[in-house]
Amino acid sequence: METETADRTTGWLTEAEQRAWRIHLDVSRLLMYQLERDLQPFGLTNNDYEILVNLSEAEDHRMRMSDLAKSTLQSKSRLSHQITRMESAGLVRRENCESDRRGLYAVLTEQGWETMREVAPRHVASVRDHFIDLLPPEALDSYHAALSPVATHLRATRGH
Amino acid sequence: METETADRTTGWLTEAEQRAWRIHLDVSRLLMYQLERDLQPFGLTNNDYEILVNLSEAEDHRMRMSDLAKSTLQSKSRLSHQITRMESAGLVRRENCESDRRGLYAVLTEQGWETMREVAPRHVASVRDHFIDLLPPEALDSYHAALSPVATHLRATRGH
Repeated sequence: METETADRTTGWLTEAEQRAWRIHLDVSRLLMYQLERDLQPFGLTNNDYEILVNLSEAEDHRMRMSDLAKSTLQSKSRLSHQITRMESAGLVRRENCESDRRGLYAVLTEQGWETMREVAPRHVASVRDHFIDLLPPEALDSYHAALSPVATHLRATRGH
Repeated sequence: METETADRTTGWLTEAEQRAWRIHLDVSRLLMYQLERDLQPFGLTNNDYEILVNLSEAEDHRMRMSDLAKSTLQSKSRLSHQITRMESAGLVRRENCESDRRGLYAVLTEQGWETMREVAPRHVASVRDHFIDLLPPEALDSYHAALSPVATHLRATRGH
């Protein structure tokens, strides 16, 4: 759908821009697909894993549901469904906080924590095998430098 | 969960590797979130848009369902649900091919094509505003060069 006229009027991407965009999109999608495939033997999805990471790193292994929704970029209703599934699997539990009216919390269970301890090394190995070890070592810093302003912009845009 | 011992035994990421991985993950997620938000006024999700792009670029605006599933990294059953939703919205239709027993096809409708023509310039503007224009121009080529081997590896791994 690219034409010379369109190029000028709608800002279609140049060839170099198109290449950079396509490779970003392809790597993002293929990598998420692969990481999820590597999580399957543990019965986890990428979203499950992300929630386990968030709770593992939080104080007392607990987060307010609304904060967890923000952190994982999910709507509250979608997160709620997911927490229900993870609750059935014994990985997390919901908890009300008596001293805090706003407070419905998701809490990592002992089983959830054990699962993290088992899965995290395998997940890191996947990240290595399918991404980090394939980047030239000298590209790590420039990769971070190039993308940092993008992340800053995107966080500001969504109002964080 | 990073300790010195773990570092040696399980290959935890170094600080520079961790930074590169986190920024990749953050930008991927935040960008997909933002692009989907920009598609919402048109009633489309990222997955819908990806399917419309695939069909728009295919010969006769049609693809075998199994090829479309591969191309969009979706399971056949999940794609089938999605095509049903897009069929209800009038964007695509299913078609059997008489001369090809394997052949259940997804076909872009006239309305689907019109939608693409309306949405594509807006989508490209989003990609520009939230990603491409934030990268230093000289980074475009190095970005592509760094990620190309990753994409090649990931495609080979999933058996394409």
